[in-house]
Amino acid sequence: MDIATRVYNHKWKIDPIVRSLIDTDFYKLLMCQSVFRNKPDTQVTFSLINRSTSVPLAKLIDEGELREQLDHIRSLSLSRGESTWLRGNTFYGKRQMFRPDFMEWFEGLRLPPYHLERKGDQYELTFEGSWPEVMLWEIPALAVLMELRSRAVLDQMDRFELQILYARAMTRVWEKIETLRGIDGLGIADFGTRRRHGFLWQDWCVQAMMEGLGSSFTGTSNCFIAMRREVEAIGTNAHELPMVYSALAEDDAALARAPYDVMSDWHEEHDGNLRIILPDTYGTQGFLDNAPDWLAGWTGIRVDSGDPAAAAEIAIRWWQERGEDPREKRVIFSDGLDVDKIAELHRQFSGRVKASFGWGTLLTNDFRGLVPDEGLAPFSLVCKAVSANGRPTVKLSDNPEKAMGPAEEIARYKRVFGVGAQESMDVIV
Amino acid sequence: MDIATRVYNHKWKIDPIVRSLIDTDFYKLLMCQSVFRNKPDTQVTFSLINRSTSVPLAKLIDEGELREQLDHIRSLSLSRGESTWLRGNTFYGKRQMFRPDFMEWFEGLRLPPYHLERKGDQYELTFEGSWPEVMLWEIPALAVLMELRSRAVLDQMDRFELQILYARAMTRVWEKIETLRGIDGLGIADFGTRRRHGFLWQDWCVQAMMEGLGSSFTGTSNCFIAMRREVEAIGTNAHELPMVYSALAEDDAALARAPYDVMSDWHEEHDGNLRIILPDTYGTQGFLDNAPDWLAGWTGIRVDSGDPAAAAEIAIRWWQERGEDPREKRVIFSDGLDVDKIAELHRQFSGRVKASFGWGTLLTNDFRGLVPDEGLAPFSLVCKAVSANGRPTVKLSDNPEKAMGPAEEIARYKRVFGVGAQESMDVIV
Repeated sequence: MDIATRVYNHKWKIDPIVRSLIDTDFYKLLMCQSVFRNKPDTQVTFSLINRSTSVPLAKLIDEGELREQLDHIRSLSLSRGESTWLRGNTFYGKRQMFRPDFMEWFEGLRLPPYHLERKGDQYELTFEGSWPEVMLWEIPALAVLMELRSRAVLDQMDRFELQILYARAMTRVWEKIETLRGIDGLGIADFGTRRRHGFLWQDWCVQAMMEGLGSSFTGTSNCFIAMRREVEAIGTNAHELPMVYSALAEDDAALARAPYDVMSDWHEEHDGNLRIILPDTYGTQGFLDNAPDWLAGWTGIRVDSGDPAAAAEIAIRWWQERGEDPREKRVIFSDGLDVDKIAELHRQFSGRVKASFGWGTLLTNDFRGLVPDEGLAPFSLVCKAVSANGRPTVKLSDNPEKAMGPAEEIARYKRVFGVGAQESMDVIV
Repeated sequence: MDIATRVYNHKWKIDPIVRSLIDTDFYKLLMCQSVFRNKPDTQVTFSLINRSTSVPLAKLIDEGELREQLDHIRSLSLSRGESTWLRGNTFYGKRQMFRPDFMEWFEGLRLPPYHLERKGDQYELTFEGSWPEVMLWEIPALAVLMELRSRAVLDQMDRFELQILYARAMTRVWEKIETLRGIDGLGIADFGTRRRHGFLWQDWCVQAMMEGLGSSFTGTSNCFIAMRREVEAIGTNAHELPMVYSALAEDDAALARAPYDVMSDWHEEHDGNLRIILPDTYGTQGFLDNAPDWLAGWTGIRVDSGDPAAAAEIAIRWWQERGEDPREKRVIFSDGLDVDKIAELHRQFSGRVKASFGWGTLLTNDFRGLVPDEGLAPFSLVCKAVSANGRPTVKLSDNPEKAMGPAEEIARYKRVFGVGAQESMDVIV
């Protein structure tokens, strides 16, 4: 595959960005099955949020093209081969991870309508409907916007410039991989679907990881690529579960319980390496301090905001206090990683915990400095559940820059979850 | 064009390396026409000389494959389009550079037989016959050996490794070009045919130079690429003229005159930018000291061995002594150049002379450090006239490492041309 040529050819025809309903993150499907069982009738609204207001998406991306891509996604359904793979494949060592009733529902699924409106230089893009359906919009919507933005910049380049661009980007990724290859005992997965430069590029990055890292490359979060490249599909759960559960809470007491209700539902459904705590939705320290004892028996924790080393230390102390051996526990770092940070965290924590890494944006979208005015640099785009059954959702995070929700609700959540002062950190990616 | 894919596909079929009789250096054709007029019946032997004995060509390259490639070259004749281009194109501002009688001869030409024998880890490859025919073997023979050696190494690599290899090599060339772009008033041509990594790669490098340097890129020595890419064909004359003329000399007095006889014949045939002195065959200093006055009126000089700055200074002093203004003279540097050296020489000589550059091996074959054991690093392979009408040729050069010929003849030439101690310099490329 010659990416430069493919990209160049894009200029003359419509080329779908998302070609499969499983071109999405594995944890979306795990969570979807959980929601399908536990909260199928919850009505949610997901909304696009561009934290990088300096990137004027509506100026860069033609509305017609965007609608064309989103409409194409609505035309997709699970193919026979995809269904067979989901039903028959072993995920995390388990056969039939996806239950027959869920698979039947998924096989019949088409994604629900979207609402798109230009607001100044940004797009308002929202999805409303039942939670299990709407939640599957998140990843393809982000992938479409990321890739249309890439194409807007690439369209200005001639074939030769494209060739040099990809030669440089490939060289950069490969040099990162060579650095990682030097790290003894590394375990790292691709988590880059949502912020990828483009589909072909993510697919190439996964091949580079396979080639360069061998068994240190533990898999990709992208189901479609995992299937095509025959690597493990990786992922557990995300903030949307506690955010929606919390929004549904009837009072402060129920709110305080909600994040643990999520864990409890998950506990019934999954074991082993899928029992990974994501503790930072309303502050890691408070979440762990107030956690029920059985949660300390889980396999590990995912660190997705704030100072990762500090969060890992909190987890280690917590396990020790609960009589668990941290050396037996997995800590998955997944926030804003690049090779230096990965090497540093690995040095700091290997031997003390089972450290592993979910590498996202700076694997699949590091085009920094390769075109003028950083036209292809990654930016911070998310698509989040903003309300559930008419109530706003709230995220506090370990980094106030990543907080979201109405101010008065944020204040209430801070009170209920006992979150005090937080250290603000730049959200680069 | 996706070079990695093309290279990968080479593994399954015979793919001719030289596809055209004009896939050769332009100066070969100019010299051939001159020889065709002045010395058509001279019998010469050209021979392959691998100065890099550490590269075991006969171990790397299969003899059958080598014969297949050489046989293919013998099957080539000038195509109609090539002939039209040579007859109709303007070279160095001149129409009908190639005379009708030469073109008729060239149109009927097939290259003469070759003699190939394995000697230990090297090949003995010689060409015997009339000078105008045999001399056209030099460049395609080198191109075939260089590219078969590249293929021997590339054949061991899988598709992904090839993609990374070319991504890195492209990035390297492009970064060199970006450095050159910063040099005000630069004039630079591709002289890399004979030492190229491969044909496709040279063609890509020329496109990169066109794209990156605009009018600072003055053209390529390769006629086939010049025709296809519509850039200037560049080149004047080479050591083989004084070497053969000298070998033909009947006595010492005739030998002392021979290099000037070459210039005299050239003077009758060419003017303007084609009047470029190549003074180093038997020592630059002596050649200029003993040169006839009319030679100082020539347009410039080509510096191809020894310390380039020292040679340029010798030329500047010589012009001054002969009442010429060096600022009106062209100095073409063409030996072992890379960007740093180019930048340095440009700084040192721009304004003092019209400096320009013929960039060869480290443009079209800089794969240093890209595969283990420097398997693709350039090496010093030449194909030279070793005898003329049964007498050995001699080259002294400004660098004794580049000298060639029987010891007693070298001693005689040193005496005749008054060459004393010379400073030895590594021949990297």
